[in-house]
Amino acid sequence: MYTGPLRSLIDELGRLPGIGPKSAQRIAFHLLKIPTEDALRLSDAIVSVKERTALCERCFNVAERGALCEICQDETRDGTVVCVVEEPQAIAAFERTKEFRGRYHVLQGALNPLEGVGPEQLRIGELVARIEVERVVEVVLCTNPNLEGEATAMYLAKRLSELPVRVTRLASGLPVGGDLEYADEMTLGRALEGRRELRA
Amino acid sequence: MYTGPLRSLIDELGRLPGIGPKSAQRIAFHLLKIPTEDALRLSDAIVSVKERTALCERCFNVAERGALCEICQDETRDGTVVCVVEEPQAIAAFERTKEFRGRYHVLQGALNPLEGVGPEQLRIGELVARIEVERVVEVVLCTNPNLEGEATAMYLAKRLSELPVRVTRLASGLPVGGDLEYADEMTLGRALEGRRELRA
Repeated sequence: MYTGPLRSLIDELGRLPGIGPKSAQRIAFHLLKIPTEDALRLSDAIVSVKERTALCERCFNVAERGALCEICQDETRDGTVVCVVEEPQAIAAFERTKEFRGRYHVLQGALNPLEGVGPEQLRIGELVARIEVERVVEVVLCTNPNLEGEATAMYLAKRLSELPVRVTRLASGLPVGGDLEYADEMTLGRALEGRRELRA
Repeated sequence: MYTGPLRSLIDELGRLPGIGPKSAQRIAFHLLKIPTEDALRLSDAIVSVKERTALCERCFNVAERGALCEICQDETRDGTVVCVVEEPQAIAAFERTKEFRGRYHVLQGALNPLEGVGPEQLRIGELVARIEVERVVEVVLCTNPNLEGEATAMYLAKRLSELPVRVTRLASGLPVGGDLEYADEMTLGRALEGRRELRA
């Protein structure tokens, strides 16, 4: 029953990921109710992100428009090891581990033939070029441990096999703090397959 | 780890109702990825709602700025019966029933002393004025069947008792299609209390 600008706002909010029609309506009424300056901070933030943010020209992480991303700018990072991820969000997860001091390469997706995502749609050519130009020694394939991510890792392993670079893949196995009883058979199978010798 | 415009956008999204930090991040990256024109349709919709929408001067429903709402404009509606609701969203729910041809009055909230919402913060004075000026015959109290809504209904019943108007309250009871076994004791108690004679 809503019409005019309120209808448009509900429609636009409903297009966001994870926002259903009910949430869209609730958020629209919230925006209607709060002071104008608070609502405009959100619209300004959207405009500002689109104006001032772009992809890093080297690794395709999020960066200020016209500049390299913070990690590529950081000269103390080890450029010879590169973690290949699907999306920039994954970089934040790796950074939180504080275990990795190399660089990243964001593919901007994973292979998905059904949705028309082939190797040409991903930043794979750019990865190959980086390996050569930046003298990368190891590429760690960090695509997601699902169908598309695994297929992408397999494809990359094959494609990079001719280059003088070590290609590794993140370990699959039981999540830390998890309970064996609730592990699915795929994960448990991978954990078995990847078992390691333990020396006391 | 996010900085600059992306950080601001995640923060602003996180202030919306029902959006946690993870959702805010996911939506921000979505807005970053989609074409600029698609993202700007959302920011424009926010600006447009704040510029062009306001509260109806008579009933405090959503309306075009400077005009009465669609329901108050509709001369075919019965102005002598007024449903009093907490928020404009409730009006859509009543309209879907197609059972009500009267008008509405939106209190813009419910009494909540703990959050500093007293009678002065609600549109109660305006309701009293409408009853007198518009010769309202019946006021149906349609505040929510929770603590704040019930308190507001009780307060209004007392406050309106001196006026020449019938004051009624929405029935409480079992939801249609519900299962008696799963009804909570409050609802079942209300259903018993409000039982009606059945004649075949």
